[in-house]
Amino acid sequence: MTIQATLIDELAVMLGQGGLLTDIDDMARYCVDWPGYRGGAPLAVARPATTRQVADVVRYCHRHDIPLVPQGGHSGLVGGALPDGERPELVVSLERMTAVRDVDPINFTMSVDGGCVLQSVKDAAEAVDCDFPLSLGAQGSCQIGGNVSTNAGGLNVLRYGMMRQLVLGLEVVLPDGRIYNGMKALHKDNTGYDLKQLFIGAEGTLGIVTGAVLKLFPRPQVSRSALLACPSVAAVLELYALARRSCCDLLTAFELVPRTCLELAMEAAPDLRDPLDAPAPYYVLMEASASGPADLDSMIESLFERGLETGRLTDGVLATSEAQAGNLWRIREAMLEGQRNRGEHLRTDVSLPISSLNTFHERATEEIGTLCPQATIIAYGHIGDGNLHFNILPPPELGPDERSSLLHELEERLFEIVADFDGSISAEHGIGRFKQTAFLETLSEPEYDIMRGLKRLLDPRYLISPGRILPRPVE
Amino acid sequence: MTIQATLIDELAVMLGQGGLLTDIDDMARYCVDWPGYRGGAPLAVARPATTRQVADVVRYCHRHDIPLVPQGGHSGLVGGALPDGERPELVVSLERMTAVRDVDPINFTMSVDGGCVLQSVKDAAEAVDCDFPLSLGAQGSCQIGGNVSTNAGGLNVLRYGMMRQLVLGLEVVLPDGRIYNGMKALHKDNTGYDLKQLFIGAEGTLGIVTGAVLKLFPRPQVSRSALLACPSVAAVLELYALARRSCCDLLTAFELVPRTCLELAMEAAPDLRDPLDAPAPYYVLMEASASGPADLDSMIESLFERGLETGRLTDGVLATSEAQAGNLWRIREAMLEGQRNRGEHLRTDVSLPISSLNTFHERATEEIGTLCPQATIIAYGHIGDGNLHFNILPPPELGPDERSSLLHELEERLFEIVADFDGSISAEHGIGRFKQTAFLETLSEPEYDIMRGLKRLLDPRYLISPGRILPRPVE
Repeated sequence: MTIQATLIDELAVMLGQGGLLTDIDDMARYCVDWPGYRGGAPLAVARPATTRQVADVVRYCHRHDIPLVPQGGHSGLVGGALPDGERPELVVSLERMTAVRDVDPINFTMSVDGGCVLQSVKDAAEAVDCDFPLSLGAQGSCQIGGNVSTNAGGLNVLRYGMMRQLVLGLEVVLPDGRIYNGMKALHKDNTGYDLKQLFIGAEGTLGIVTGAVLKLFPRPQVSRSALLACPSVAAVLELYALARRSCCDLLTAFELVPRTCLELAMEAAPDLRDPLDAPAPYYVLMEASASGPADLDSMIESLFERGLETGRLTDGVLATSEAQAGNLWRIREAMLEGQRNRGEHLRTDVSLPISSLNTFHERATEEIGTLCPQATIIAYGHIGDGNLHFNILPPPELGPDERSSLLHELEERLFEIVADFDGSISAEHGIGRFKQTAFLETLSEPEYDIMRGLKRLLDPRYLISPGRILPRPVE
Repeated sequence: MTIQATLIDELAVMLGQGGLLTDIDDMARYCVDWPGYRGGAPLAVARPATTRQVADVVRYCHRHDIPLVPQGGHSGLVGGALPDGERPELVVSLERMTAVRDVDPINFTMSVDGGCVLQSVKDAAEAVDCDFPLSLGAQGSCQIGGNVSTNAGGLNVLRYGMMRQLVLGLEVVLPDGRIYNGMKALHKDNTGYDLKQLFIGAEGTLGIVTGAVLKLFPRPQVSRSALLACPSVAAVLELYALARRSCCDLLTAFELVPRTCLELAMEAAPDLRDPLDAPAPYYVLMEASASGPADLDSMIESLFERGLETGRLTDGVLATSEAQAGNLWRIREAMLEGQRNRGEHLRTDVSLPISSLNTFHERATEEIGTLCPQATIIAYGHIGDGNLHFNILPPPELGPDERSSLLHELEERLFEIVADFDGSISAEHGIGRFKQTAFLETLSEPEYDIMRGLKRLLDPRYLISPGRILPRPVE
């Protein structure tokens, strides 16, 4: 038997029936992420059923110098959880660790396994009249451990923050196989360095998140949606500041939709009607919601009044039924569909100070237009988060190589503009492997030194998710 | 000239006129914290005027192996910023770095110097119709750098979170004198490890916070206060969960006040009247506030109805004027005064899962009562934060030594009970030096190893705030 075969044998014994997959067909689905990105062939796929088993596997890998990569629901966008093709890795999937350990509607907390699917967490919250507000397109498959490790954002960040704001405690298997037990359900705790912060957003490079204590909120009982028409991005930004006031910070969404995107949506969904009589250059799709007797209609009407008075708003419609609200939100879905129909394009996920979004938008539109006049810009986003998806559809006539090199050039230019505005090249998606080159260019020397120091402190041999976020040291 | 005199001379030149204090009388006020705690004599007091000067001082200390301690507004409760008596330290006071660098009411952010006094931050926010919600008794003197370094909490944590939730960016002078510039005003940023988290709550042991980007909120336009009478702590907890729903998460305070505390308040302020007709064992002082047209009265009335129906509430009063609200909140002030009038006592700052507060309260009351039947227990706190000040007044007849040893014994017992409930021995106050012994007992081996590793990574020679949180290594 080869050494590798021995290792795999020992892991199989450790994990028991169904705990280790080694067949190529069985392992195929662990090598693909949702957008279709593919990784290399793994050594094997470990499917531990308990935190103890995760610790056993990691300790074993530590002892035998086997690199490993933790996996959640395969919905990452930067290749962080895909097995490396060059240096085979053991995939550690948390898919068998799906328990909701405890729900506490008085403390407004829930304790769950790292492999628990986001939708199950949301369902368990709803069962006690609470809400776990993290909402993502992938919520039916993504796992809490992955949400923690990528500091997931999604639709309700404006109101509830990113995942970091929703985590009170963590359980993490460290790269040496020891367990850090920080599963405390405390809303306040100032005892020493807050270690859980290290693992949130670390993309699995500092440990495997096997459990989390999450914050819950009262479940919204009422919600109202509206579409607003605005003359400019600057007006949209001022309207946002007004809306936070008028709606008493009960806003759950405030989305920028340029006219181009509305047209793209109507192209993709021909039954969709222009919701307003006259076209406007920009629209806002907004939603407010409340868990008790709040008069959201009055709040939104007062926003309409202030907006019309001050010329920041030219028209608007308040949905008075769930069906009407659903129709408004279909615009956003259809616009994404319309974008996908246009084939390969540049998708970005940048963030800026909200107050810079209009000047950033102007400058980026101008410079990208100069670089490639035939490109179509599709720039929409979460205004309240300063998060813009400034996407670019290349001219349709280009061949694959030309297209790819054009998109690369446009991305570089766009990221330079982002840097000029003190923005971020990755608001939500993270770094993983795909964004590493661009990311490393943004780091100052002290930042790089501390980040590398953190990695070395916890994983001196770069065995866990090696090469993600930071490159492996040259050997 | 001695070596020390040379060092002091060089620092004086570096910092210019008024930049270095060496006279014992001039230095006296840097050796005392607000509660009256005293530190040792410092080497000197450096008062840098810019981030660059802070960096110069720290680099100089690093080169010459001089320990230093950063200082804010002297309102700490655990001795963290007091100069060490055993090994003289250079005090680095940020009191000359008080600028509000930038206020951005569209981005809802503000950039300030580390030495900016909290009240100035609040005033600058108010000037643009915004709110910086951190509210502390010490807000007229405490500084933002200190608030960041201690992860300050205060009155509005229930609604807005601790300081960690209010910080978007930081500028920190690292222990080697380099500057970490993370002054980004971004609401979303997932590019690598979130380094600012390291310095929040680190009590100045990993660097000196010289600047911060803070989150602002719409300024509340209306607020309503109420006093509720409840039959038990369990009823208070259930009422809290109801209140979050009824008040649409617009609650800004939900404070537990036992009858003992109300009586203590009336004793300290004889003009204070019992606000309700019949005494009740427990009261809640609550407040809700909103930045727009929310009908807070209806919300609180709906809570009264639900509370009365379900027996969780026996009586209540909704303040219908600011004067009435002020009278309700005077109870809390007077109760703290009444407590101070009773002389030296055990003050604790523990936190528990909210749902455990009643069983914790019962068990602690019983066990402390058994240990010392003549002690008076004063247990009040922020219910929504799970934060209880379980304070104990010793029998008045004890001498100072007996009292001190009794309080120590009671604290140890109380902390054991806190541990049994997976609570925290320091919800807000931090560790500093005073709570170090008790804190170290709560740490697991991996926790201790990572914390020590973080300290060594950033400050391998333990030169900055040495001995705070973690002990200095034995030489």
